[in-house]
Amino acid sequence: MKIAVLPGDGIGPEIIAQARRVLDVLRQDGLPIELEEAPLGGAGYDAYGVPYPEFTQKLCRAADAVLLGAVGGPQYDKLDRPLRPERGLLAIRKDLNLFANLRPAILYPELANASTLKPEVVSGLDIMIVRELTGDIYFGQPRGMGVNEQGEREAFNTMRYSESEVRRIAHVAFGIAMKRNKKLCSVDKANVLETTEFWKEIMIDVAREYPQVELSHMYVDNAAMQLVRNPKQFDVMVTGNIFGDILSDEASMLTGSIGMLPSASLDQNNKGLYEPSHGSAPDIAGKNLANPLATILSAAMMLRYTFGQEEAAVRVENAVKTVLAQGYRTGDIFEAGCEKVSCSGMGDAVVAAL
Amino acid sequence: MKIAVLPGDGIGPEIIAQARRVLDVLRQDGLPIELEEAPLGGAGYDAYGVPYPEFTQKLCRAADAVLLGAVGGPQYDKLDRPLRPERGLLAIRKDLNLFANLRPAILYPELANASTLKPEVVSGLDIMIVRELTGDIYFGQPRGMGVNEQGEREAFNTMRYSESEVRRIAHVAFGIAMKRNKKLCSVDKANVLETTEFWKEIMIDVAREYPQVELSHMYVDNAAMQLVRNPKQFDVMVTGNIFGDILSDEASMLTGSIGMLPSASLDQNNKGLYEPSHGSAPDIAGKNLANPLATILSAAMMLRYTFGQEEAAVRVENAVKTVLAQGYRTGDIFEAGCEKVSCSGMGDAVVAAL
Ligand SMILES: CC(C)[C@H](C(=O)O)[C@@H](O)C(=O)O
Ligand SMILES: CC(C)[C@H](C(=O)O)[C@@H](O)C(=O)O
Repeated sequence: MKIAVLPGDGIGPEIIAQARRVLDVLRQDGLPIELEEAPLGGAGYDAYGVPYPEFTQKLCRAADAVLLGAVGGPQYDKLDRPLRPERGLLAIRKDLNLFANLRPAILYPELANASTLKPEVVSGLDIMIVRELTGDIYFGQPRGMGVNEQGEREAFNTMRYSESEVRRIAHVAFGIAMKRNKKLCSVDKANVLETTEFWKEIMIDVAREYPQVELSHMYVDNAAMQLVRNPKQFDVMVTGNIFGDILSDEASMLTGSIGMLPSASLDQNNKGLYEPSHGSAPDIAGKNLANPLATILSAAMMLRYTFGQEEAAVRVENAVKTVLAQGYRTGDIFEAGCEKVSCSGMGDAVVAAL
Repeated sequence: MKIAVLPGDGIGPEIIAQARRVLDVLRQDGLPIELEEAPLGGAGYDAYGVPYPEFTQKLCRAADAVLLGAVGGPQYDKLDRPLRPERGLLAIRKDLNLFANLRPAILYPELANASTLKPEVVSGLDIMIVRELTGDIYFGQPRGMGVNEQGEREAFNTMRYSESEVRRIAHVAFGIAMKRNKKLCSVDKANVLETTEFWKEIMIDVAREYPQVELSHMYVDNAAMQLVRNPKQFDVMVTGNIFGDILSDEASMLTGSIGMLPSASLDQNNKGLYEPSHGSAPDIAGKNLANPLATILSAAMMLRYTFGQEEAAVRVENAVKTVLAQGYRTGDIFEAGCEKVSCSGMGDAVVAAL
């Protein structure tokens, strides 16, 4: 179980340190886990002058899975575009062919108050958003800035999907729906965009291989509304890269506790990159204040999806549930009556609960 | 005051009928209002075989303003793409050069319970979303379906903005911010898309002409989150066509009463198309159940933005506030203790309050 560990920037190193402690416990208990670190994002730029250094590429290509903290920070904002931290993230996704991004939006009962939505609207919320991650307008060519036929400055990007790109993400989404409540909602803007009309057609075609899954379709603007109006109508949602970027962030915020939400980005063979859904939080970096639970839960996803270690994954997830039930809270999820702990304090609690 | 009236499809004719009654009162009181009707959307297809018939084009081009009900219905879903109702909507926007879409998201205190968000998060909510409406990936060329270099089927669309397109919407947005709380948030995905990086640069440039307005920038994924987390942080938001489509629907649903929200789509000379933010609601069409208030408030926006009749606009808006205070509610906004009224019943109440 070769794992490349990329702490990244901001709170990245702190939250990764706690996830490592969890993996160390599992190793002591017999899992053949090997960890090696490399820099990505701003850390890559600082060490090697680029956000996805060759050293990191080699390590990640050779690994079975990648565990990432977070990338980005204000000190890198003035860098040239290709050198910026988020470029490292886009590059590693493309390099490792991580086309399937899984982003659960789950409300932990103990944290129900953290949501800005009324309890009856979000209690029991459990949505899985499947976002295509290596195509669409993120990578489509041509792109850039230039001068148009009228001699005026302009800029452009290309939304593009090929049949095989849509087919493979459809299979991932249907596969996940089969393991859950067998309801899949494909999100498009087929009334305006040919790319997403094509997307929709392929979804309908692939659906024939999964007769037990109930496939529905929704326009992206309506999906953004329905997530606010009645999010519990959804089980699994599947959509393209840019719509998925927007909707998965909206969905995670419905829980009010984005510090709890992990994510997985998988290739065709279940090699994956695992990272918390939240960002690098430069404002609290280095202060031992961050919530490490999303990263620890990302490690659990890794055990499940890449290594097929369902038992170990559940063990970690149960440890997280235990510490929540025990009342331990980092600042972001704190409420009166609970015990406020630091990032490493939360790590202590999880290790104890394991 | 020449107004082209397009009832459209579904509940369109019913809600337009009530807005016409309001305009009739104003005419009787001295405003030189002239109304003429024409079909758009499915109604255009039924009458002339196309969603934006020449008859309608002529009337709308000659008018000072257009008042629209809504378009679309299941009976048109199987039509060829160019014949579908929403194509009529896209065509009229482009034909009349209605590049500035204004979509207020306002919470009426009497309807606070309708929101799925906690009262303290949304009470007093008053956001104006300025969406560019005639550019971006909606209209960008090239677009379509084809076969790529690998011989595989694919589809593509082009996100594209020229400098003048961004500049003119920027001026509209800054102008509106000047009349409100002087806070403008420009939404982009400048970390990934050159088109929106270009957009952001131009916003910063135009900002120099509005030194009193505080301009901020936010990534679209974060904006989708922040609208859920703390929507009251926003005053005016400005963004491109596709992001605006998604975010304005999300924002309007925060109020829980989309049946109350009007919209305006303006050209360079304040000629405008005015329509409710909601759709054609085929399920309740013809049953005299629809909420006509968003359409009536759209007529008020028309009086304000196209005709500069602030006093008449406020008179209509106050009449709407009065009927809410009196407890009249259509089914969509009904709660116990209020008086349930039909679509025309609500029209009666507004006319009485005028
Ligand atoms: C940082 C950025 C490039 C990235 C994306 O847009 O994919 C982020 O928002 C995400 O969702 O992982
Ligand atoms: C019907 C559709 C083409 C339209 C759009 O996407 O612009 C609608 O969603 C809107 O926002 O007015």
